[in-house]
Amino acid sequence: MKSLAPLYAASALTITLIGATAASADEGMWTFDNFPAEAMRSAHGWAPDQAWLDHVRQSSVRINGCSASFVSGNGLILTNHHCIDACLQQLSTADDDLVAKGFVADRREAERQCPGQQAEVVEKIEDVTARVAGAIGSATGEALVRARDAEIAAIEAAGCSDPAKYRCQVVTLYGGGQYKLYTYRRYSDVRMVWAPEAQAAQFGGDPDNFNFPRYSLDASFLRAYEDGRPVETPHFLRWNPRAPEAGEIVMVSGNPGSTARGLTETQRAFVREVALPTTLILGSEFRGRLIAAMEAGDAEIRRQGEGALGGIENSFKAQSGQLRSLNDAEFRAMLERQEADLRSRSAGNAAIGDPWAEIAAADAAYRPLYLDYRFLEAQAGQGSQLFRWARTLVRSAAERDKPAAERLPGFSDANLARTAQTLFQPVPTYDWLEELRLSFWLEKTREYLTVDSPEVRALLGREAPEALAARLVEGSRLADPAVRRALWEGGSAAIAASNDPLIMFVRETDARARAVRARVEAVYEGPVTAAQTRLAAARFAAYGDSAYPDATFTLRLSYGTVQGWNERGNNVPYRTLIGGTFDRATGAPPFHLAPAFAANRAAIDGTLTYDFVSTNDIIGGNSGSPVIARDGSVLGAAFDGNIHSLGGNFGYDGRMNRTVTVSTQAIQEALTDIYPAPALVAELNGGSRRGRR
Amino acid sequence: MKSLAPLYAASALTITLIGATAASADEGMWTFDNFPAEAMRSAHGWAPDQAWLDHVRQSSVRINGCSASFVSGNGLILTNHHCIDACLQQLSTADDDLVAKGFVADRREAERQCPGQQAEVVEKIEDVTARVAGAIGSATGEALVRARDAEIAAIEAAGCSDPAKYRCQVVTLYGGGQYKLYTYRRYSDVRMVWAPEAQAAQFGGDPDNFNFPRYSLDASFLRAYEDGRPVETPHFLRWNPRAPEAGEIVMVSGNPGSTARGLTETQRAFVREVALPTTLILGSEFRGRLIAAMEAGDAEIRRQGEGALGGIENSFKAQSGQLRSLNDAEFRAMLERQEADLRSRSAGNAAIGDPWAEIAAADAAYRPLYLDYRFLEAQAGQGSQLFRWARTLVRSAAERDKPAAERLPGFSDANLARTAQTLFQPVPTYDWLEELRLSFWLEKTREYLTVDSPEVRALLGREAPEALAARLVEGSRLADPAVRRALWEGGSAAIAASNDPLIMFVRETDARARAVRARVEAVYEGPVTAAQTRLAAARFAAYGDSAYPDATFTLRLSYGTVQGWNERGNNVPYRTLIGGTFDRATGAPPFHLAPAFAANRAAIDGTLTYDFVSTNDIIGGNSGSPVIARDGSVLGAAFDGNIHSLGGNFGYDGRMNRTVTVSTQAIQEALTDIYPAPALVAELNGGSRRGRR
Repeated sequence: MKSLAPLYAASALTITLIGATAASADEGMWTFDNFPAEAMRSAHGWAPDQAWLDHVRQSSVRINGCSASFVSGNGLILTNHHCIDACLQQLSTADDDLVAKGFVADRREAERQCPGQQAEVVEKIEDVTARVAGAIGSATGEALVRARDAEIAAIEAAGCSDPAKYRCQVVTLYGGGQYKLYTYRRYSDVRMVWAPEAQAAQFGGDPDNFNFPRYSLDASFLRAYEDGRPVETPHFLRWNPRAPEAGEIVMVSGNPGSTARGLTETQRAFVREVALPTTLILGSEFRGRLIAAMEAGDAEIRRQGEGALGGIENSFKAQSGQLRSLNDAEFRAMLERQEADLRSRSAGNAAIGDPWAEIAAADAAYRPLYLDYRFLEAQAGQGSQLFRWARTLVRSAAERDKPAAERLPGFSDANLARTAQTLFQPVPTYDWLEELRLSFWLEKTREYLTVDSPEVRALLGREAPEALAARLVEGSRLADPAVRRALWEGGSAAIAASNDPLIMFVRETDARARAVRARVEAVYEGPVTAAQTRLAAARFAAYGDSAYPDATFTLRLSYGTVQGWNERGNNVPYRTLIGGTFDRATGAPPFHLAPAFAANRAAIDGTLTYDFVSTNDIIGGNSGSPVIARDGSVLGAAFDGNIHSLGGNFGYDGRMNRTVTVSTQAIQEALTDIYPAPALVAELNGGSRRGRR
Repeated sequence: MKSLAPLYAASALTITLIGATAASADEGMWTFDNFPAEAMRSAHGWAPDQAWLDHVRQSSVRINGCSASFVSGNGLILTNHHCIDACLQQLSTADDDLVAKGFVADRREAERQCPGQQAEVVEKIEDVTARVAGAIGSATGEALVRARDAEIAAIEAAGCSDPAKYRCQVVTLYGGGQYKLYTYRRYSDVRMVWAPEAQAAQFGGDPDNFNFPRYSLDASFLRAYEDGRPVETPHFLRWNPRAPEAGEIVMVSGNPGSTARGLTETQRAFVREVALPTTLILGSEFRGRLIAAMEAGDAEIRRQGEGALGGIENSFKAQSGQLRSLNDAEFRAMLERQEADLRSRSAGNAAIGDPWAEIAAADAAYRPLYLDYRFLEAQAGQGSQLFRWARTLVRSAAERDKPAAERLPGFSDANLARTAQTLFQPVPTYDWLEELRLSFWLEKTREYLTVDSPEVRALLGREAPEALAARLVEGSRLADPAVRRALWEGGSAAIAASNDPLIMFVRETDARARAVRARVEAVYEGPVTAAQTRLAAARFAAYGDSAYPDATFTLRLSYGTVQGWNERGNNVPYRTLIGGTFDRATGAPPFHLAPAFAANRAAIDGTLTYDFVSTNDIIGGNSGSPVIARDGSVLGAAFDGNIHSLGGNFGYDGRMNRTVTVSTQAIQEALTDIYPAPALVAELNGGSRRGRR
């Protein structure tokens, strides 16, 4: 499992969705202010108390696209390797490949800052539903979207006076049934402390991703700094390098990115018939082009492409699993029964009306706009970093000139400040990869929207896609942070005067992209937001607060037990041992041993627990989440789900859905015998004496 | 549109399907022995008589994967450029690229044989339904399949005493409702006469494929030889280089490859949910790899890959269109109404029973086998020519040792004779492309069936997919026709003794592939064949013979008129003019002018009709079909359908579905002023005096 991927950016804008029916088994990604302690206690004989919840909340850390936790009083952070491989890549050069070699800081001074990395801890949660609902009033369509976003921006701006140290974020829960203001303590200087070789973290590569049994050391350590010194973090999870026991209760605290469990059948049909197939088909071709370009290139090209490829393959596998689930007859029937149950409970309730029909109408209006929206707006640039910077610069300049209430979502003052900070970070770009992305985007836009469409003519003029992409990338100077800063600071005048080809290209084509966004907001996002609010009311009326909201990349807690599952008649054991790595290794990638594993084979204790599975309900974005014992100590870092967890985007099946975790026992063995870091071992184990629990 | 692509090889084996409900508008791919003359006359005021039908049938030619027609008394054949580009590629070398340059034989002696090219003309059609039904008796499952195939093989063997000059083929119509014996006159020496530059045929490339307006010279000429001399063909279509008129009646005679208009809703759901998405996703990644490999390679690599890429992109676009149609609400509703109508007309008929439920049960049993079947059997090798030869050799040797009644489909004596002939042809293979195919196949098999499956372990052992593919391709000597011939002639002893790595690989893995085929025959093909026979009976009972059978790559006739259509409020005209090419050309591929167009611009008469559309109901395999005026003269060669024709696999929509044809007027202009071939012009125009009509 990778970090948070915006799977539905192309299909659902910023809409978050309504939670499913009342949870059963170990289902649920619960907010900390609505944890179902009674239900858990009756199922498992134990549940956390408020002190436990408060301590774990304050020990839980959100990082870019991932989850993490403090594991010492000095700001030490445990997360996955795959959550920080982009940082390792950015700190690498052709001659010093930290992704391949790993990284061990033998002293504090050797810890290296990760460009753009944030660490955020939830300090406070407040209900602001009434304010947002009041601002929306009786608005509809695009006006509803604008009113809602403006009020959210105002609440966020008023909430945080010191944006360097705090972040205020209004979170839309239950698809608009609730709005909550989350206040985060924020750390913007986060440094790399320890990471194994990528091959140790990614042993088995894409073939083993989302599979179990698994032999992966997908762990790393970061440290939060402020004013040049490690941050003091009195709330941290006690390091507990013991093996988990079969059946023991484990809690996962982290930030599931997004789920779509509250989709109506109409919306699921759109995802199943249009959004997922289109995404998978396009993603596959790009994956093929990237693989072949890397194979044709030298070692340095392969190094540069690795991160992109890993992300694409992870998304592909996750989305393939989603499509399989949505086409599975039993799974579909389960979801259809849930919808039927809510409909029958809501029948005749005039305040609720028929939100299903309204969503169906909005969906029908959105379908013909989907390809335009996808290619011109949501997925424009196919992930090109240079294009993203260019669009950010052009749009931010235009939006900054407007009053807050009229801006596009994501352009509030607070957001703009964070945008600027990210924009100025030194992040390497690779021309060949940028060209591959832009060329692919332009080719596919022409293919899907057709040669004769005005949109395609506006994008391409009389140029061929490949030639245009080459001209834009080779002529642009946006790779230089100073150039980006100058354009940002120069505002709309600097943008208007720029002769950077990418800035000029976005300047000339952005109106069409904005226009299709506005149409989608008017016919889809607005009506769906209004309908979802009543759908949320229907759920509260039917099930009370025994429902959890869909994932929103905000802090949630899930409960479960350590256990394997039954795979077509065969029992899959709940854990692997480190020694199994040597049996599974074939010598051929991606099943070759990491060099340090091969070199230290004699010293490694093969009987220690490596990875294990539990019934916790998690999803992408939860990567790096601490897996916590009843006593509040940390037993591992969750890094994946099994193949059955992929339907988890739409519903939870406790018989099969499993979280996959790398154990603290294996990490400690790595810190001792494979990638030695004695100071870190001392800090982790000594640090426990200063923990509150 | 490309030539016949076996779209459903992976999902439906050799099953052919039952025609749709009674045809309406210009719908229908009619057999020559059941042409609806009355219906056509009442709709259009004219219909062909028996003499017209007999003459056109005898002038119509089936070539490999395509359609064609005799257009002189000396065996001259008109077809599409894209139907013979594989031949041009095979006749090309790195220094003499006939695909790029085109080919003009200025005299008979310069005409060059196309390896493996056949030309076949239907001489006779006989009904053998009673014989096949009698042989099947009350057999079920795999036994039904074997009994049917053995009887078909026996009928074919008895029908043709001279396999060099005749081919006997039992055609399964109406999904088993009828079996007909087609006897073909067969010509195995077919030579290249004339072809334009590929860029003239493919102007607009993939972006313009399946689109209209169109500017394509997708035409070529072949000639059938026997005993070293051109064949005398008294039946041929008179060459008529006049522009078609709006509204005039045109007939298309050719070989539509396959349609699936008789699928039940259950089967369409499988295609929509599983088969098409899987095919598109896998095809996309392979497309991406091939494109990037060609971009990274030199001009010779690009030349070698072109044919494969064209085929992949054509299939991709066609299948994408099919998926869109199947997910279109109106189109789905139309097909569901058709099924509901037949069900209600059949209710209570005990002889028919419930074939829909039987097919649904077979489909449910097939779904879990689909990926195994696809990767191990139907799509094994990802189109690798070397792998195909290896499997043909290994299987043929094993099947030849068995009595005819126990052999796999396709291994009757008559088929084996044709197989051998094809096998010994000198066809170039390119190691890089073979490795790309095999490596992709092995990687994806591992990805989809998972590392721990016994099938994957049996295929890979402890080798990586790329390394195994390289070993197989680099070590194999099967590219040499003499090696293939020796293995063929040595039979099973030679196969057992071979140390060719590909022969060894297939020898060791083929049992698993055969086993999954046998399972699919038992649980799917057998029960579905039985159910389809009763479904066909239901259709005959409900609609009489006003239904046409699904396409089977056998000769059909379709009627229609020359007309444009209305595209979202805009009228698309029925034709383009040659001069429009120069307006559409941008200079950037694939919209650059073919060199001979640029060089002869002044001489070219831009006011002549280039391509035109008509309402005829055709599909892949029809490529190259003559488009025939009422007087029996030929007005063009059909080469494509518009984008709306892609749903034609499942149903016909006369408002939008159009056939795209290159006009004889444009071809004659090309023969005169662009790629001059005066002898050919004389033969075409002089030959008309000797034609019967």
